[in-house]
Amino acid sequence: MEVTNRYVAIRHRIEGAPTEADFEVKEQTTRWSPDSGERIVSYAVGEVVASASPEYAAGDMVAGVLGWEDYTLFKPSPTAHMSKVDASAGFPLSYHIGVLGTSGMTAYGGLFEVCKPVKGEKVFVSAAAGSIGSLVGQFAKLAGCYVVGCAGTKAKVDLLKDKLGFDDAFNYKEEPDLKSALKRYFPNGIDIYFDNVGGEMLEAALANMNIYGRVAVCGVISEYTGAGRPAVPDMLGVIYKRITIRGIYAWDFMPKRFAEFYGVISDWIRQGKVQVIEDVSDGLENVPAAFVELFTGQNVGKKLVKLA
Amino acid sequence: MEVTNRYVAIRHRIEGAPTEADFEVKEQTTRWSPDSGERIVSYAVGEVVASASPEYAAGDMVAGVLGWEDYTLFKPSPTAHMSKVDASAGFPLSYHIGVLGTSGMTAYGGLFEVCKPVKGEKVFVSAAAGSIGSLVGQFAKLAGCYVVGCAGTKAKVDLLKDKLGFDDAFNYKEEPDLKSALKRYFPNGIDIYFDNVGGEMLEAALANMNIYGRVAVCGVISEYTGAGRPAVPDMLGVIYKRITIRGIYAWDFMPKRFAEFYGVISDWIRQGKVQVIEDVSDGLENVPAAFVELFTGQNVGKKLVKLA
Repeated sequence: MEVTNRYVAIRHRIEGAPTEADFEVKEQTTRWSPDSGERIVSYAVGEVVASASPEYAAGDMVAGVLGWEDYTLFKPSPTAHMSKVDASAGFPLSYHIGVLGTSGMTAYGGLFEVCKPVKGEKVFVSAAAGSIGSLVGQFAKLAGCYVVGCAGTKAKVDLLKDKLGFDDAFNYKEEPDLKSALKRYFPNGIDIYFDNVGGEMLEAALANMNIYGRVAVCGVISEYTGAGRPAVPDMLGVIYKRITIRGIYAWDFMPKRFAEFYGVISDWIRQGKVQVIEDVSDGLENVPAAFVELFTGQNVGKKLVKLA
Repeated sequence: MEVTNRYVAIRHRIEGAPTEADFEVKEQTTRWSPDSGERIVSYAVGEVVASASPEYAAGDMVAGVLGWEDYTLFKPSPTAHMSKVDASAGFPLSYHIGVLGTSGMTAYGGLFEVCKPVKGEKVFVSAAAGSIGSLVGQFAKLAGCYVVGCAGTKAKVDLLKDKLGFDDAFNYKEEPDLKSALKRYFPNGIDIYFDNVGGEMLEAALANMNIYGRVAVCGVISEYTGAGRPAVPDMLGVIYKRITIRGIYAWDFMPKRFAEFYGVISDWIRQGKVQVIEDVSDGLENVPAAFVELFTGQNVGKKLVKLA
């Protein structure tokens, strides 16, 4: 099958925060042997248009590692994390790479398997209006916890409090001293910190943590671009308070726990207990701009680009 | 009962590493109402010479929080962590505040409860010739692990390899680049790091850690005195490798698990499977010098001062 495939390529090595100018849209006919040095991949949901594998048939919907392109040649392998989407469940396709995909697995597994919340515990979530943070906060509320989130705009803070049911939320950009800010929001200390940002926020959360506190480290967005300085955690505090810090990753919970997590989360969505926040751009040419938004904090909820 | 009590007091607020000149020996008659601002306490073993409590009788041997002094007035309370010593077990009294006390509980609990070693795993121990490190390494060998320790003198390195059965050991002071040193000693990566020092060694261990690695954080000796800089751990690596970092503390395992740990460790000692290394000074006047040694790395094994 011959197609004209448009794909997003990197123009040059990116230093610091990415900009749209770092990318370009290229075009190729029958791109069945992708140049792996040039091709960019991410989690995506797509339709099988042709298949030489008995596992997949044209018309199947799949979610997994696909290219930033109109057509991806996909060879079945464990590292592609490809799975068929259960279209009969009736959820929007996008949910299968968000709340019912990597974002949901990371939030659910990180919170329940790693942090083990107990009713009444105090939970802090950074980047709380992001794809994972927005779910962690809602899941923690469903576990009976007191939940405070932080985000970088007033609109996001309002969303957390008004729509997602967080007990409180604040704009970290308006807080000159993160340690005192957290002391204000958690006068009795933090039991669980779901860390999406790293850097100074991690230090401040550790300083406000209670004994036996748990930190799930999910992202270090403040450090990715070199804009923020890396965290210098107070390890003596970690010892005295017997804090656990653990790195988490969605695929640790898949495929083993996938069905279980999927079942719980999809029930919560159906029952209206979890709100799914998506931020959708349109068209392949807008993939670079959408990607850049992740580093400037413009997206609200799961950032997605609709190609077809 | 009236006694003349000699005690060690702090002359002034200590900045950075302590020196002997920061302390002085004072004397008081019938010091039954200790000035808590002046009195220094640590774990010690002692004999009850007089008691108004039905729980203790003159002649009982006890281990717990006692003063740096000839006689301590002790009021039973949970925070004193006082327990009667089973003298019939036949171990030297000092063992009850070392290998069978806080050092042993920290090493055993930290290794087996927190790090959960699996046969064949690679274990790195810093300050490995210290009271806790020397036990962790031996316990890890008994668990079937490959064990490398680091210490600060050739004599200690020799002790680790020749007497304590470590698979390998090195002098960190002779390693200009700790990351490459650990890469050399652990070509297949570190699974468990028992951290007694913090700082750059923690960074280097994390950099060499395998996926699902575990770090028990027990001490940050390199940071106590302000001599070393604090660790700036690579949190992105912690995420990618799903590393667990956890602060540990002997009393988390006591009294709940005390009998169990005590039983296992005392059997190992009797069977000659664990060597107990002690470094004993003599006399109350030598307590300050003994304490200072802990910060200059002069002690080998458990540092103790014999008063009577």
